[in-house]
Amino acid sequence: MEQLNKTQSQRLPFLIGVAGGTASGKSSVCTKIMEQLGQAEMDHTQRQVVAISQDSFYRELTPTEKAKAQRGMFNFDHPDAFNEDLMYETLQCILKGNKVEIPSYNYCTNSLDFENMLVIYPADVVLFEGILVFYFPKIRDLFHMKLFVDTDSDTRLARRVPRDINERGRDLDAVLTQYMTFVKPAFEEFCSPTKKFADVIIPRGADNTVAIDLIVHHIGEILAATNNAQLYNTIRNYTTPSIMKRDH
Amino acid sequence: MEQLNKTQSQRLPFLIGVAGGTASGKSSVCTKIMEQLGQAEMDHTQRQVVAISQDSFYRELTPTEKAKAQRGMFNFDHPDAFNEDLMYETLQCILKGNKVEIPSYNYCTNSLDFENMLVIYPADVVLFEGILVFYFPKIRDLFHMKLFVDTDSDTRLARRVPRDINERGRDLDAVLTQYMTFVKPAFEEFCSPTKKFADVIIPRGADNTVAIDLIVHHIGEILAATNNAQLYNTIRNYTTPSIMKRDH
Amino acid sequence: MEQLNKTQSQRLPFLIGVAGGTASGKSSVCTKIMEQLGQAEMDHTQRQVVAISQDSFYRELTPTEKAKAQRGMFNFDHPDAFNEDLMYETLQCILKGNKVEIPSYNYCTNSLDFENMLVIYPADVVLFEGILVFYFPKIRDLFHMKLFVDTDSDTRLARRVPRDINERGRDLDAVLTQYMTFVKPAFEEFCSPTKKFADVIIPRGADNTVAIDLIVHHIGEILAATNNAQLYNTIRNYTTPSIMKRDH
Amino acid sequence: MEQLNKTQSQRLPFLIGVAGGTASGKSSVCTKIMEQLGQAEMDHTQRQVVAISQDSFYRELTPTEKAKAQRGMFNFDHPDAFNEDLMYETLQCILKGNKVEIPSYNYCTNSLDFENMLVIYPADVVLFEGILVFYFPKIRDLFHMKLFVDTDSDTRLARRVPRDINERGRDLDAVLTQYMTFVKPAFEEFCSPTKKFADVIIPRGADNTVAIDLIVHHIGEILAATNNAQLYNTIRNYTTPSIMKRDH
Repeated sequence: MEQLNKTQSQRLPFLIGVAGGTASGKSSVCTKIMEQLGQAEMDHTQRQVVAISQDSFYRELTPTEKAKAQRGMFNFDHPDAFNEDLMYETLQCILKGNKVEIPSYNYCTNSLDFENMLVIYPADVVLFEGILVFYFPKIRDLFHMKLFVDTDSDTRLARRVPRDINERGRDLDAVLTQYMTFVKPAFEEFCSPTKKFADVIIPRGADNTVAIDLIVHHIGEILAATNNAQLYNTIRNYTTPSIMKRDH
Repeated sequence: MEQLNKTQSQRLPFLIGVAGGTASGKSSVCTKIMEQLGQAEMDHTQRQVVAISQDSFYRELTPTEKAKAQRGMFNFDHPDAFNEDLMYETLQCILKGNKVEIPSYNYCTNSLDFENMLVIYPADVVLFEGILVFYFPKIRDLFHMKLFVDTDSDTRLARRVPRDINERGRDLDAVLTQYMTFVKPAFEEFCSPTKKFADVIIPRGADNTVAIDLIVHHIGEILAATNNAQLYNTIRNYTTPSIMKRDH
Repeated sequence: MEQLNKTQSQRLPFLIGVAGGTASGKSSVCTKIMEQLGQAEMDHTQRQVVAISQDSFYRELTPTEKAKAQRGMFNFDHPDAFNEDLMYETLQCILKGNKVEIPSYNYCTNSLDFENMLVIYPADVVLFEGILVFYFPKIRDLFHMKLFVDTDSDTRLARRVPRDINERGRDLDAVLTQYMTFVKPAFEEFCSPTKKFADVIIPRGADNTVAIDLIVHHIGEILAATNNAQLYNTIRNYTTPSIMKRDH
Repeated sequence: MEQLNKTQSQRLPFLIGVAGGTASGKSSVCTKIMEQLGQAEMDHTQRQVVAISQDSFYRELTPTEKAKAQRGMFNFDHPDAFNEDLMYETLQCILKGNKVEIPSYNYCTNSLDFENMLVIYPADVVLFEGILVFYFPKIRDLFHMKLFVDTDSDTRLARRVPRDINERGRDLDAVLTQYMTFVKPAFEEFCSPTKKFADVIIPRGADNTVAIDLIVHHIGEILAATNNAQLYNTIRNYTTPSIMKRDH
């Protein structure tokens, strides 16, 4: 991951973790935040806020595991399915203000797409969302703010079933079997106990406009402060005799 | 409801309420209990244990309500959907040792079937199961034992979806919409708060063989005591000079 | 309650409801918010943010009820203990930008103190906190933002016991009896079900600095916007020829 | 632990685990069961039902740990505080029908009393109660029936506070500090997740007469079956020509 020039390195981002069970509305919450801040329609290189999914950090499966996954017998909701070290190093890199590249995740093939890497440019606020983002202690400790999207388990299942069938091309039986065999037990064992680490619990998910508004305003304020600081820096750079400029 | 002769009226049943959310396993628990006690294969007139569903006490719908029901817009999970008075009177009748007739419920047409009435003969143990059997105070007070089958809401939904689709001829969208619009809110408002009245909570439902075994043995003991009493009565009747027999 | 002049009436406050069980940290959260916004040390007439307790709206007890209360037999946690109408009218008045007077509540004597009325001056943000502020539908609908301070029931009891003993002069047995007889059942029946109306759930209460920070920043932004508007109005008033000023 | 003669070894007990949080009513439930079965007043050598507390299996503390314990800084609610191996071996021994000796636990000194060992004679039903009896997998697998006494956390604290003060000679502050520092977090991390292994959940504890009755009848039936078998054996022993008796 490349070194940044001085201007970029001043952007040390505010890192927000967004956890919650499957289909709780984590990524919808992130999308709404991006939209309300006018970031969604921006070019990636210009964004002040970026959202990253934990799904980009699934580890690569062995051939045996891939075969299991194809029969719906691999547990994608278990901490072991993720590459904790890569997740940690990438977030560290982001926190230092560096540009990073991460693979996208293909939900139809259940695999990472390394052909089409997502480039994450330095930003002022980074949202990192996933079922287990508060599970690994050293990753959990990186967040400046921890949100937990808390949606009832039956509501989540009622959302996941049509999504998995319509968008991910699975059939009802397979979806329910996977849910009961892997998704639910892993939520109860690994995700739900991390709710206690949350700073703010957002009930209901993306429909909760008041809570999203609150987060949006908070981020907006961080961005405004950053912009002011940059403006200040720009002005200072223009007005400060170059002889006085020094790197520390 | 007809009067009983003396022998029948001696059978004042032990009434067990079985509550729990939709698809929690209430009726499966009742079925297993019946089977393990050898009651399921018995002729109805001979059974010592009978199971009755609260669904037989849905009140008759007005034409407007029927139209609503056909569009999936009637709330069958609300206390108002039931005929509380008829439920109470029927249970009272049963508790006095009388034979009663109740309609069966057709889940495909969402209506009571008065053509094929179920005849409930006097029994020693009566299981009464339904989502709201502990909701109405005067009905709740009739039970000698109150069981609550406690199954997670997502597990219940995962059971209800295929059941409603396969056995009741509905489509996925309709099932999920009805669940989120009526079933879930009504469970949370009316059924779940009655868990506190339960004497015993049975986690997981019909798979919980140890708990079912416990109930089966308890009922078995009640039946044995009744049989002994009847045997005693029979012997006494045979050996007591008829001149000494008197009604009190 | 007096009519206000035009300048005051422009301050139509943002009303935040803060609910939660006894000793959940509701009023500590409000205090911290006031402090962080520099409002706590301000003169009451100058404050832009004010916090009001639902306890000021206990209704006056009859002599019989007072006698009960002295024996610890009055249920102060039941909705009936509050004057719903007065609460509603007072909040309406506040929302119109009017000054109101409310009694303070004396926790030692369990009575309202009408001698020392609290004067609530028009403010930009009003925090209204209490166990049942989301219980009454017409009051609940007044809030622009609804916060629920969610603290485990045993943690709340562990806080309440020493507080009641040390600050409110009660003994351990009386505190525990009151808690189990009135406080806990009323929480479960009346307060806990209102959590579903919350926009944001604040776990743990006043120790949750990140969540409080979030609220503080949101309020700070509202205040800044108000100040700008007032500045704008002030400037306009100075520069607009008086002949053009008109009341609408 | 001594070998038993043939008659004793025929008593392979039915082992019931009774878990639940502190002050949930685990041992009261056991006591009530013993009383209703007429076992409480029996001589220890004659009992058919015995109750054992997990507290007899605290491991011996090092001097450092003892010092900590005296300052209320040792975590007695953590799995590490128990001697898992000894617990397992003792239960194995009991299950084989052997007599065992275990120390009693002194709650005032927080130490095991090896001077006054409890002798556990072979019995037909053994109740083993404690906060973590379902925590250790190999111990959990020994139980024929698993009961979880489920009492709200605030109710449990409201019971524990006066008990620790009155019976165990502690002061309010120490009790609350220990509860919040050790008891509550350990319950949530180690005890509460074992509720899912329970066969039957007993709400409210010892006040739940219907649930206790159910357990009592079940045990009563086991005892009756055992007595019949023993009677049968006794009769057989008397009537079988000694030449035909053989050990297998």
